[in-house]
Amino acid sequence: MDFFFFFGSLYSYLSVMRVEALAANAGVELRWRPFNVRAIMVEQDNIPRRNPVKMQYLWRDTERRARRHGIAFNGRPPHPVDADFLANRVGVVAAQEGWCPAYSRAVFNAWFRDHQAPGDRAHLEAQLRALGKDAAAVIARAESQEIREAFDVQTDAARKLGIFGAPTFAVGDEIFWGDDRLEDALDYAKGASAR
Amino acid sequence: MDFFFFFGSLYSYLSVMRVEALAANAGVELRWRPFNVRAIMVEQDNIPRRNPVKMQYLWRDTERRARRHGIAFNGRPPHPVDADFLANRVGVVAAQEGWCPAYSRAVFNAWFRDHQAPGDRAHLEAQLRALGKDAAAVIARAESQEIREAFDVQTDAARKLGIFGAPTFAVGDEIFWGDDRLEDALDYAKGASAR
Repeated sequence: MDFFFFFGSLYSYLSVMRVEALAANAGVELRWRPFNVRAIMVEQDNIPRRNPVKMQYLWRDTERRARRHGIAFNGRPPHPVDADFLANRVGVVAAQEGWCPAYSRAVFNAWFRDHQAPGDRAHLEAQLRALGKDAAAVIARAESQEIREAFDVQTDAARKLGIFGAPTFAVGDEIFWGDDRLEDALDYAKGASAR
Repeated sequence: MDFFFFFGSLYSYLSVMRVEALAANAGVELRWRPFNVRAIMVEQDNIPRRNPVKMQYLWRDTERRARRHGIAFNGRPPHPVDADFLANRVGVVAAQEGWCPAYSRAVFNAWFRDHQAPGDRAHLEAQLRALGKDAAAVIARAESQEIREAFDVQTDAARKLGIFGAPTFAVGDEIFWGDDRLEDALDYAKGASAR
């Protein structure tokens, strides 16, 4: 199952914290795919941030759903974040190198629990060091043309699947939008592997 | 618990078919409140119909969720519907007179199963007669100034609660958006009545 998410999306937090254990229990293999949902939403003129009534609800709902799932929620963290997509591009590096789950949990935890905005370089370096990485080397790679293009490739793959928001789970061409469809997506993935 | 919904909203279909049994099982009293979500969405410039990528998904998801809940889905029904809100205003009459649940199920079933657009007068009359109502008298009441104003009162109540979509469940000031939050809303309502 492909897990399309974005460092900067509220509901991606819930999925980042939940998906690995649930997928393992379901026997479903996961591919972590950070992508530029912001670009897609701008293309589609789909900007919830412009609607303060809806945004108010989305924060409240994220808080309630976090509590329901036993995930930390410590008041509203900074938002929007990762203006130049550095946290996301490091996520692409991490996915290529196989340490995306731990990296993602570290970044989203720091964002929601400690209100450290993803993409803030000082915090990012500390997070990478805590994961045993050479922070300068990882960030240099994330700034490279190769990784910028790899990030665009993920976004293009999402676009082709008809993805319009994050998180989205994809099983082949079948997409499931939102943390609240994670269980449906896993059920579908299990059915697909049985077929 | 207040059930704000709209004759014309995809996901309201799922809730109309599910809410009564679930609320009864939970011991939660329900108030059926048709309201003009279209007016609110236009005010907030929140028009999913303008985004074909998202609309494609919303239909697919409605179909999948209907199947999951054992609710009929017979291909895409007409949409948008009820341009002059007649089906909704009859819903206001029905809510005042205590027959909104049966009326709503009849209209939504006819829409999704038989592709009869809500608000189509010939179908509406047949549906009202099947419910043992004097169709002409009910429709005359639905066209009255009193019921038009009562519909606006529902919409204003929704607006004041911060509602931006349908269906929405409200327990006091706490709102839950979407058929997929029905269970959360009922849990909250049970907790609220215990407090």
